[in-house]
Amino acid sequence: MADETWIFEYVRQFEREEYLLPNTWIVVRIDGRGFHKYVSFTNLCKNPIRLAPLWLQARISNHYGFVKPNDIRALDLMNAAAQHVLHVLHDIMISYGHSDEYSFVFHKSCTLFERRSAKIASTVVSTFTAAYIHLWPRYFAEPAPTGTFLARHSNGGGSTNVIAIEGNPQSQETSREKADLAISHLPTFDARCISYPSNHNLKDYLSWRQADCHINNLYNTTFWALVLKGGMSNTEAEEFLKGTLSSDKNEILWSRYGINYNNEKEIFKKGSVVLREYKMLEPTEAARRIDIDVASDLPKEDELSKTKREKIRKARQKADVVVRHIDIIKDDFWQQRPWLLTGQPGSSV
Amino acid sequence: MADETWIFEYVRQFEREEYLLPNTWIVVRIDGRGFHKYVSFTNLCKNPIRLAPLWLQARISNHYGFVKPNDIRALDLMNAAAQHVLHVLHDIMISYGHSDEYSFVFHKSCTLFERRSAKIASTVVSTFTAAYIHLWPRYFAEPAPTGTFLARHSNGGGSTNVIAIEGNPQSQETSREKADLAISHLPTFDARCISYPSNHNLKDYLSWRQADCHINNLYNTTFWALVLKGGMSNTEAEEFLKGTLSSDKNEILWSRYGINYNNEKEIFKKGSVVLREYKMLEPTEAARRIDIDVASDLPKEDELSKTKREKIRKARQKADVVVRHIDIIKDDFWQQRPWLLTGQPGSSV
Amino acid sequence: MADETWIFEYVRQFEREEYLLPNTWIVVRIDGRGFHKYVSFTNLCKNPIRLAPLWLQARISNHYGFVKPNDIRALDLMNAAAQHVLHVLHDIMISYGHSDEYSFVFHKSCTLFERRSAKIASTVVSTFTAAYIHLWPRYFAEPAPTGTFLARHSNGGGSTNVIAIEGNPQSQETSREKADLAISHLPTFDARCISYPSNHNLKDYLSWRQADCHINNLYNTTFWALVLKGGMSNTEAEEFLKGTLSSDKNEILWSRYGINYNNEKEIFKKGSVVLREYKMLEPTEAARRIDIDVASDLPKEDELSKTKREKIRKARQKADVVVRHIDIIKDDFWQQRPWLLTGQPGSSV
Amino acid sequence: MADETWIFEYVRQFEREEYLLPNTWIVVRIDGRGFHKYVSFTNLCKNPIRLAPLWLQARISNHYGFVKPNDIRALDLMNAAAQHVLHVLHDIMISYGHSDEYSFVFHKSCTLFERRSAKIASTVVSTFTAAYIHLWPRYFAEPAPTGTFLARHSNGGGSTNVIAIEGNPQSQETSREKADLAISHLPTFDARCISYPSNHNLKDYLSWRQADCHINNLYNTTFWALVLKGGMSNTEAEEFLKGTLSSDKNEILWSRYGINYNNEKEIFKKGSVVLREYKMLEPTEAARRIDIDVASDLPKEDELSKTKREKIRKARQKADVVVRHIDIIKDDFWQQRPWLLTGQPGSSV
Repeated sequence: MADETWIFEYVRQFEREEYLLPNTWIVVRIDGRGFHKYVSFTNLCKNPIRLAPLWLQARISNHYGFVKPNDIRALDLMNAAAQHVLHVLHDIMISYGHSDEYSFVFHKSCTLFERRSAKIASTVVSTFTAAYIHLWPRYFAEPAPTGTFLARHSNGGGSTNVIAIEGNPQSQETSREKADLAISHLPTFDARCISYPSNHNLKDYLSWRQADCHINNLYNTTFWALVLKGGMSNTEAEEFLKGTLSSDKNEILWSRYGINYNNEKEIFKKGSVVLREYKMLEPTEAARRIDIDVASDLPKEDELSKTKREKIRKARQKADVVVRHIDIIKDDFWQQRPWLLTGQPGSSV
Repeated sequence: MADETWIFEYVRQFEREEYLLPNTWIVVRIDGRGFHKYVSFTNLCKNPIRLAPLWLQARISNHYGFVKPNDIRALDLMNAAAQHVLHVLHDIMISYGHSDEYSFVFHKSCTLFERRSAKIASTVVSTFTAAYIHLWPRYFAEPAPTGTFLARHSNGGGSTNVIAIEGNPQSQETSREKADLAISHLPTFDARCISYPSNHNLKDYLSWRQADCHINNLYNTTFWALVLKGGMSNTEAEEFLKGTLSSDKNEILWSRYGINYNNEKEIFKKGSVVLREYKMLEPTEAARRIDIDVASDLPKEDELSKTKREKIRKARQKADVVVRHIDIIKDDFWQQRPWLLTGQPGSSV
Repeated sequence: MADETWIFEYVRQFEREEYLLPNTWIVVRIDGRGFHKYVSFTNLCKNPIRLAPLWLQARISNHYGFVKPNDIRALDLMNAAAQHVLHVLHDIMISYGHSDEYSFVFHKSCTLFERRSAKIASTVVSTFTAAYIHLWPRYFAEPAPTGTFLARHSNGGGSTNVIAIEGNPQSQETSREKADLAISHLPTFDARCISYPSNHNLKDYLSWRQADCHINNLYNTTFWALVLKGGMSNTEAEEFLKGTLSSDKNEILWSRYGINYNNEKEIFKKGSVVLREYKMLEPTEAARRIDIDVASDLPKEDELSKTKREKIRKARQKADVVVRHIDIIKDDFWQQRPWLLTGQPGSSV
Repeated sequence: MADETWIFEYVRQFEREEYLLPNTWIVVRIDGRGFHKYVSFTNLCKNPIRLAPLWLQARISNHYGFVKPNDIRALDLMNAAAQHVLHVLHDIMISYGHSDEYSFVFHKSCTLFERRSAKIASTVVSTFTAAYIHLWPRYFAEPAPTGTFLARHSNGGGSTNVIAIEGNPQSQETSREKADLAISHLPTFDARCISYPSNHNLKDYLSWRQADCHINNLYNTTFWALVLKGGMSNTEAEEFLKGTLSSDKNEILWSRYGINYNNEKEIFKKGSVVLREYKMLEPTEAARRIDIDVASDLPKEDELSKTKREKIRKARQKADVVVRHIDIIKDDFWQQRPWLLTGQPGSSV
């Protein structure tokens, strides 16, 4: 073989790069592939083609016996992987996740990889996946905690803490065993980039995800109470909940099973926020007057001076990356943490 | 919190999907992040901003003491991860990799994820990363083989098998130790999608990568011979090789170190091809007459019948996914394996 | 004002270019804006917002009294404007149009404007519009020909040749008058680029447009016969034709009005093909053996030599650009004119 | 031909739409093709391929004898065409142009054509081109005004008012003749869409264009003074001006030709702003406090109520569309006209 690369090199012309619009917030949302989707055997037979590529990946949560409605080990692992991503990519200001999804928010002045969409999304998802797989044994070596709300609310019988999944019944014993990763069921994620032009749009995006967390968790908590404590089949529970409002579900939980939804763990109800910790501002009138929408704009100069960028980077590296389970919909959250929108590191705690 | 998702749901309008052009070959190429790039302390100080995001990831190969110029454990692990990807995603017809990169080729009739670019690229890179991290202990639990060409060519002194990296000298002992993954140096990959309209373009893409493998490997083999056997510093070796042709490098290897490059392992010289194994066609005149460029086109019908698709899927699942180190530039390779271009499974071996 | 441009120049970073995939056929299709769409007053009141931007442009064909179902002046003007576009942009191999639409096909090896989508589409539509407006007086200075099929089929009474449009009745006299362009009703067009990877795909695109011409023209001919000769209102005719097949429409035309659709003008039934004229190949067996799908591929070299490109350009400029009303669905059309797919100019006639 | 459209209809899948990011300002900038670019015969021979597609279009300004440095007829025609575009497309809030370019700004809440990029750009450029061609005779039927600055500043000799263009000398007589459009030299434009996320970015874009107008006009005024009054050749004038600052050019004009650049017409120095006229706000302190950057954001509701949209549309249609030659870089301009950023029509004058 001679040095004939040049004959073939024209193929590089076919590469296309998408550069995300400058001065917009970049959100990378990753979603677990086949984690929780319930795939009944019937459905699988009806539509084998569509599901085919998901086949090996499907039903991660069933395969590893995730506790329902929430497995704290799985959530803690998601959060640890997200923390790792913030350690590696310091342009991420905040990230929010629940269930098997996570959203990473890059500051609108970010110039990482020249804002190439594919490069950003693939780096985030690969970094997250690597950490998730690497850290798995640390979180799943332990047996599952004795059922989440079930243990707390059961009258003394751990025996009700059985995860009854159609066609895949698991005894409590199973779910408490150490869950080693199997090559046939490796957890994986997909990723996408989204641009948001204004601070309002970004806040609404994150509010949307947190509202979604609340709605799903209330549904799942009620659903699994009906199944695990009420003895309904999955299908019966699904039918039973059709058309119910939030208030109906709260009522069902309370009147039937004595569960006060408000007492559920914050991590389940609010999801998880991952961010760098600085000294928070007092929510005084003064602070409230910070207009969230003008807090930051791309500087007119193309880029900050290198010195300044480097200083910011170092300040970010020094800060702790913490996990919180708090309300991010209210303006308070943003007013107390102006660094999230300005991109300027705050004072150390 | 009320059921207020609908207030925020408008943010979904900001999501943009890129659908890859139908009837084109889709190549997903993944690249290791910071695997082999040599980052001197001097360079780091000069340009700290650009490198910052790569900081934690940088120098994977140094951190884990990869043997130079090729560490067979690292290559075998890449190949195992690629095989896993082909098991999971049966629309991939062939994949090719060397060093820390891999290209996965989806057939041009593929409709996976409606051909959404971000979904395809992120799924491939997450699946590859998950397998790579999961399988790492299997390949790196063993000490490194006693140096590749070095052992073969050394006069009996393993003592030359020292990886001399400026500012990070490692003794042979180090490189032979078991290399556990560290959270601070998790191997990760980025990914991109590229579309190729014609069979010729696709073949030229793969030829480009294989020619690149050859050129890089010849360079690296000579470079590390000069360093490890010739006692040059990295910089001296780099200077020495500037402007040399392939023939010059072959001559240096032979005359100075008695190394016949042709005897190097095929996996190093040719890289690795991963594909499903069917019965190959005889390279008779008849077979040669198969015109590679008309072998396949999107059927006029929008999609194959479901029955047919399902039959193809099953045939692919039954086939072995094998790794080969052979020439894919010559037409023979394609003529003997018409299923690669037609997408129709061949006869089982 | 000082020389302060540099302060603002960062805004150039927001420009995004889409480069069309190399080695694919580029089709630019332009469509008349508000030419024929029938907008009843009722619809307008129901949905005033959606229609608003079209308001001034709407109903071009009514405003200028286009003869129904086909106004030969309008079609000839479209064809003249298309010919002009081929004179200006020699990378266009063929174009096809009917009604108020036209498709221009750039050869897949074309590198005009580096294949930037916006530049190509906007240049085509601006060139077409300029010619259409400029040439309008030449085609519309004359009174309308005495009705198309109506005159031909009427028993002697031009009096039936009345275009009865709800809410906008026009006497024959009106339609025969010279139609000066009014600034309030300037004809305009929109444009889009589409890429087709294979010759088959391109041929199917053009076949689709020609089949569409046939179907629309048969419908319109029958519709206007029912209205203009049968005295139905537009709504009645629409209702009457719902669910009818081609054969039904042929029958209606023949049995009710003695019109043999096959005798309609070719320009109405087949639309118009605009191309450069070279000596056609005999449709012998030999010629038939030309496989349409391998006739052309991007040369491996990035680009043809300048000399060769210049030679091709000159040959194209010398050729006549002609308008034909023929079948482009059958393979004959392409086999007799191999230059359309190869891009190599043929022999002069 | 049977009703066989369905066989071909799969080709629609190849159409790709780009939807511009919501809540961003959309700028459509059109540029004249080959209006002013000076193409010497020498250059043409050196690089015939690149220029080929522009050939017929090239040198519009020379062909029609545009007066240098500014032809008021050509500018007035540009402005009239831009006014027409604002009449047709009421989502455009403001437009700015000079020389042979024009930028049209759609409000960030605009949903025209679902924000499809190709549709918006092609509609604007086709509408502009149609008006430009249609209105040409109205502006170019008249002989050119007796030279712009030259007449005003000349000591009495109209004889200096000669446009000396290498290889294409034109006497004053020629330039005063009526200039009929020729099919061989039809003026055309290309177009592109650009998105700007913040009000600041948008203002900076328009400031960039106006600063560009100033710099170009000062250069051109000096260049043509040197050529037309100073007797230099084009090349000599170009050499002479290399590296000069604004202050140098002002000095040359004044000391050599007694021209005070400040006295040049505003339309030449500032370009042209086209907008709807409402009652302007007093530039009081109060008005100044309007923060330009929060003046408008996409309402959280997906879209305004239909009633409200319709009301806005009507208010816009009632307003006069006027042409102004004023400073748009200073904040005053925006503070006095808050409707430009809010999108809410102002009070009628």
